Amino acid sequence: MNIISILEKKRKGDSLNQDEIAFFVSSYVNKEIPDYQMSALLMAITIQGMSDEETFFLCDAMLKSGEQLDLSDIQGTIIDKHSTGGVGDKTTLVLGPLLASCGFKMAKMSGRGLGFTGGTIDKLESIPGLEVTMSFDAFKKQVQDIGFALVSQMGNLVPADKKIYSLRDVTGTVDSIPLIASSIMSKKIASSASFLVLDVKVGEGALLKTVEEARRLAFLMIKIGKRYNRKVICILTSMEEPLGYTIGNALEVKEAISMLKHEETSKDFYTVVMEIASLFLIEERNISKEEALKILEEEIASFRAYDCFKKFVQYQKGDISLIEKAPFVLSIQSEKEGYIEKVHALKLAELARNLGAGRLEKGDTIEPSVGFVLRKKVGDFVKVGEELIEVHYKKDVCPKEDILACFQIGSEKKCPQLIYEVLR
Amino acid sequence: MNIISILEKKRKGDSLNQDEIAFFVSSYVNKEIPDYQMSALLMAITIQGMSDEETFFLCDAMLKSGEQLDLSDIQGTIIDKHSTGGVGDKTTLVLGPLLASCGFKMAKMSGRGLGFTGGTIDKLESIPGLEVTMSFDAFKKQVQDIGFALVSQMGNLVPADKKIYSLRDVTGTVDSIPLIASSIMSKKIASSASFLVLDVKVGEGALLKTVEEARRLAFLMIKIGKRYNRKVICILTSMEEPLGYTIGNALEVKEAISMLKHEETSKDFYTVVMEIASLFLIEERNISKEEALKILEEEIASFRAYDCFKKFVQYQKGDISLIEKAPFVLSIQSEKEGYIEKVHALKLAELARNLGAGRLEKGDTIEPSVGFVLRKKVGDFVKVGEELIEVHYKKDVCPKEDILACFQIGSEKKCPQLIYEVLR
Repeated sequence: MNIISILEKKRKGDSLNQDEIAFFVSSYVNKEIPDYQMSALLMAITIQGMSDEETFFLCDAMLKSGEQLDLSDIQGTIIDKHSTGGVGDKTTLVLGPLLASCGFKMAKMSGRGLGFTGGTIDKLESIPGLEVTMSFDAFKKQVQDIGFALVSQMGNLVPADKKIYSLRDVTGTVDSIPLIASSIMSKKIASSASFLVLDVKVGEGALLKTVEEARRLAFLMIKIGKRYNRKVICILTSMEEPLGYTIGNALEVKEAISMLKHEETSKDFYTVVMEIASLFLIEERNISKEEALKILEEEIASFRAYDCFKKFVQYQKGDISLIEKAPFVLSIQSEKEGYIEKVHALKLAELARNLGAGRLEKGDTIEPSVGFVLRKKVGDFVKVGEELIEVHYKKDVCPKEDILACFQIGSEKKCPQLIYEVLR
Repeated sequence: MNIISILEKKRKGDSLNQDEIAFFVSSYVNKEIPDYQMSALLMAITIQGMSDEETFFLCDAMLKSGEQLDLSDIQGTIIDKHSTGGVGDKTTLVLGPLLASCGFKMAKMSGRGLGFTGGTIDKLESIPGLEVTMSFDAFKKQVQDIGFALVSQMGNLVPADKKIYSLRDVTGTVDSIPLIASSIMSKKIASSASFLVLDVKVGEGALLKTVEEARRLAFLMIKIGKRYNRKVICILTSMEEPLGYTIGNALEVKEAISMLKHEETSKDFYTVVMEIASLFLIEERNISKEEALKILEEEIASFRAYDCFKKFVQYQKGDISLIEKAPFVLSIQSEKEGYIEKVHALKLAELARNLGAGRLEKGDTIEPSVGFVLRKKVGDFVKVGEELIEVHYKKDVCPKEDILACFQIGSEKKCPQLIYEVLR
């Protein structure tokens, strides 16, 4: 077997067999295949696609490139959730404590962001002192004690994914459904949760632009999950405008805390959190959606979910009272009257990144305090001079015009669809 | 402009514009784009193709990556020929002296082989002492004096091609018609010949397997030639069985010398040489093919072509009397009676390479003396026990069974077509 014949096969659109897929994954991890051959293969896969069978073999080969967590001594249902990435997506920060307070065990690993959409770990690190690494024993103990732990890494899980992902990021091969599915599922299987809810984001601000693509990815991940005997539910949610009111690490953490403290929150963020959380309860307890939502609301209203969040921060040595504020806050007013027809999620995310909320290159330092607070969302009415968005920044220049240009204001009152469908 | 957006554009099958093509070629040569991005782009180009316009822009950008030879002070028509590569193709070694003795000036650069089909420079180097590098002044003087010089490199011509070619070779992106066309034509334009004959090989032993593909490549190269005001004629010839009787560097040089010495040679080799040579005469002197062939035959019969070859070897300091012989020669007899229906060119080339006639990796040393002498070609009749092939080797093991398996013997007397068509 050699990599050139594999490259030529996939270039022509033929299917690779299990041995060939296992060969290129392990050879790449072992540095027997250089980046330039792997990137050519990733391009061929992105263009020619992969069958479901090939995607499963790829996922399996990636999984076998590293360890799998053994969480068998934790009592209770070990769950996990994953989002394919959206602007302002801080759902994990609420879902973890909320589901832990319902009795689930969420032993979660999360990543840092490189593209526009920040990683959950970056968000968490805006809580001063909070540690995102710990020993495996401490991790298991925390999950057992309080039901929720969130770390950046645990064990040598799926090293193949780390290597392949960083290459995809710089070779225009990110939006390949088989590559996305095998990347997500290999990590989720390795982290040993038995029940997964995958939030597949659809729209302009997401990797996948259409419901059809999202559905294809969802079915593929469900199919892979079945082969490993995992329960997988996919929810397709909209990513046309930013999720919730905030973009930026500390601001997003505060918004998550607000929701956990039963304060007023944006409807879309609340809905997505509740929809995802309810899927776990409905499935696990065999109850109706209404019953599930009632339980979840009660967990929040009783502050039990927030208590769990506080314990989580305490266990990981953070202090939310020290969350940094940006030195400058600029309120930008609308220059037009009308309904907000569109908020450009990706453009806002890019602007937030330029202010320091994200990384342009691997290793860049993040300014936790910078970002945006939206005062109006799609469907809201705005008058001239009324506040549209708040900019939290550190530099002395704020790109006001560019930020204003992210809002499209017109005469149509839109009620965007938020949840497209649930697949299982 | 950035490479990721170019990668994504070509991945989706869109056309790249001149600026984008110039950008990725110059950035790659200047090491601003790493191999892994270039290889992904080459894969996308190989799968998605390029328009004629894109191919011209690519050729032009590659051409501009280096110098162009200035041969304007050489008197006479400066010609060049190029073969897309075939097993046993030693035509250049005859064509150079033959056309020089007809008054043409062939100022030729040639390459070393990496794949199965050896490079002309490797073949030449089996003549002890022969130098394949010289100063530009010496090169021009030799061409002016004797009409023929053949070197491995002259000036910094098309550095982009060197870099891109070596990457294509290891990423399964060799057989892309736009990439082949821009590679060949950029080098041919840079080496400044005004009249080119391109031998496009078709068949199992060639890069292009069908006449249709070969025709597409030919028309593309003719079109590019026109934009640079060069006369380009393409001849499509068969590469189903090895060309001539020999495979292997020294053996091929000896076969070329035999033809120049007016000795018995294989019909296919003789025909291809004469067809290509006649194209130059027909076009340049406005004569018929019959007249052209008569002139060429006379140049050989009179030994004027061979004299030119001897002068060429002398100028480049070689000594043909010292050409090495292999220590072992094994004659393999047929175990079947019948007509030779097929001789597997690529398999024989691979076996020859394994014996030391070619390189498995860049930098490998070549054994000039090893190779094969075919005693029977397609269409010949063979009896049991009659000699089929002679193996010249250095190691003590000779893969006799594998070699025998390259011959298909049956009841059908085949007369394979050798020349498919001439395009201009």
